[in-house]
Amino acid sequence: MLDLAIIGGGPAGLTAGLYATRGGLKNVVMYEMGLPGGQITQSSEIENYPGFEKVLTGMELMEPWPKQCMRFGLKHELAEVKNVSKMDENFQVTLANGDKVLAKNIIVCTGSTPKRAGIKGEDEFYGKGVSNCATCDGFFYKDKEVSVLGGGDTALEEALYLANICKKVYLIHRRDSFRASPHTVKRVMENDKIELVLNSTVKEIYGDESGVNGSIVVDKDGNERDIKAPGFFIFVGMNVNNGVLKQEDGSFLCKVNEWGEVIVDLKMRTDVEGLFAAGDIRIEAPKQVVCAAGDGAVAALSVIERENH
Amino acid sequence: MLDLAIIGGGPAGLTAGLYATRGGLKNVVMYEMGLPGGQITQSSEIENYPGFEKVLTGMELMEPWPKQCMRFGLKHELAEVKNVSKMDENFQVTLANGDKVLAKNIIVCTGSTPKRAGIKGEDEFYGKGVSNCATCDGFFYKDKEVSVLGGGDTALEEALYLANICKKVYLIHRRDSFRASPHTVKRVMENDKIELVLNSTVKEIYGDESGVNGSIVVDKDGNERDIKAPGFFIFVGMNVNNGVLKQEDGSFLCKVNEWGEVIVDLKMRTDVEGLFAAGDIRIEAPKQVVCAAGDGAVAALSVIERENH
Repeated sequence: MLDLAIIGGGPAGLTAGLYATRGGLKNVVMYEMGLPGGQITQSSEIENYPGFEKVLTGMELMEPWPKQCMRFGLKHELAEVKNVSKMDENFQVTLANGDKVLAKNIIVCTGSTPKRAGIKGEDEFYGKGVSNCATCDGFFYKDKEVSVLGGGDTALEEALYLANICKKVYLIHRRDSFRASPHTVKRVMENDKIELVLNSTVKEIYGDESGVNGSIVVDKDGNERDIKAPGFFIFVGMNVNNGVLKQEDGSFLCKVNEWGEVIVDLKMRTDVEGLFAAGDIRIEAPKQVVCAAGDGAVAALSVIERENH
Repeated sequence: MLDLAIIGGGPAGLTAGLYATRGGLKNVVMYEMGLPGGQITQSSEIENYPGFEKVLTGMELMEPWPKQCMRFGLKHELAEVKNVSKMDENFQVTLANGDKVLAKNIIVCTGSTPKRAGIKGEDEFYGKGVSNCATCDGFFYKDKEVSVLGGGDTALEEALYLANICKKVYLIHRRDSFRASPHTVKRVMENDKIELVLNSTVKEIYGDESGVNGSIVVDKDGNERDIKAPGFFIFVGMNVNNGVLKQEDGSFLCKVNEWGEVIVDLKMRTDVEGLFAAGDIRIEAPKQVVCAAGDGAVAALSVIERENH
């Protein structure tokens, strides 16, 4: 029986493991099927994780974390978790190989993954001009031009965020109207830094070794336009990685919102006793390393509090 | 008119400033009457701020923060804030010198300060064996003995936390019963690692250059006892630094709980539009650097969202 199973080994999971083991929990396993570190390791530049004067790559930032977080007894199991379910007072973790493990507490830190748009050049230039996060990467395009792809609330809010920083924002959307809330649409319309590029799809994002140089956009009549903006932000939806919480009957083990994000309180507690969530999988997650790490610490301290209670 | 005034320059305030200015807010001032960094700079060892393999001092940890956080335009004003009040749609910040500044948004990051017990040796050995935080410093006494002073919920919960890590916990309390919740008292009573030292006060905490060696405890009959534990944890209450939120009529500018901690949601919003709180001043704060920093980022992103709305 584990005291705690942590599902996912990004900043939230690693920090949860650090705080749990350093706080005296004995049997703590972090399940992560890849190298610990999370999706931030794919990022080429990070300058907003507090504590570092110079800009780091994601790999540089995360390199010390596993050693630091695992030196108090956290075990990393290189395994994929298929499912978490209730088993009397405890939880049963089912691995992809069929193994089943019991745990008294669970912290789910499986994050969320931006949906890909499927555009030529998207993968090639990911982290080198193509981004899914204005908060993270917008500043690198200060006083430069950027493109934003998408038509929902997130795309428009991120376009407004970018308009505060960048010289110009091309908002590219395949339809002639937006799915976003009317108020947000109005703010976008009023913003003279945002140019709407409607009824249009992106044929290609192009660039060279230094990164993105621009994109070729095609309107509904087939006319091509070359938008020479070195930043290309894609907001076509998120996959919340909540699969492990799906039960046989299709329901979720705990309450989630309409997008599948796990509902937590300030202590990272879900509505199920002993089940916690931390990082990008939870509601209102700002999707920043420092916030995910803070969440992990909070969740682990809540587990310890529960065990002492 | 400031876009944002940040009150307090610890991890929460600095990170809020980083995210606010990097996100494009133009007029952002952080009021901090001392050197930025916060109370963590007094700590002699930190090993749970994620990202560093080796143990750091508080000064080492915080040294890069001001430069990193201020390079996007955050201004530090070396001034004491006396009061924040509403002024029509905005806020008025009154400084100790009488100056008044208007701001559209406020993030309060003034933290909380542990009450001192007033014991001989307490100040001398603060950070060298005397601590106010089991989560921070408990692990340094793994398999060693520690003393805990206090009789409230926090003292007992911290004693339970320490009992998971340490060989033995002496729980010193001046009365013969505890003010804590009955369930917590029961858990403490049942824990065979915790020895109750009741009806007792501490005459002195003693040690040498290497830190605390023990303390002299006096019972109600005047008998002295030498408790040779190298860790001494003091939990005799917290001062929540909410003075700037106090209004002329004695009320607070926003909702606070029974201890004076500011009530926030997951976005660090108070019940007053445009007023946010981050770090140790808020409810349920785990009082950890990484959590305070995460709060600061969240609060700043909430300000930007509000300004874009």
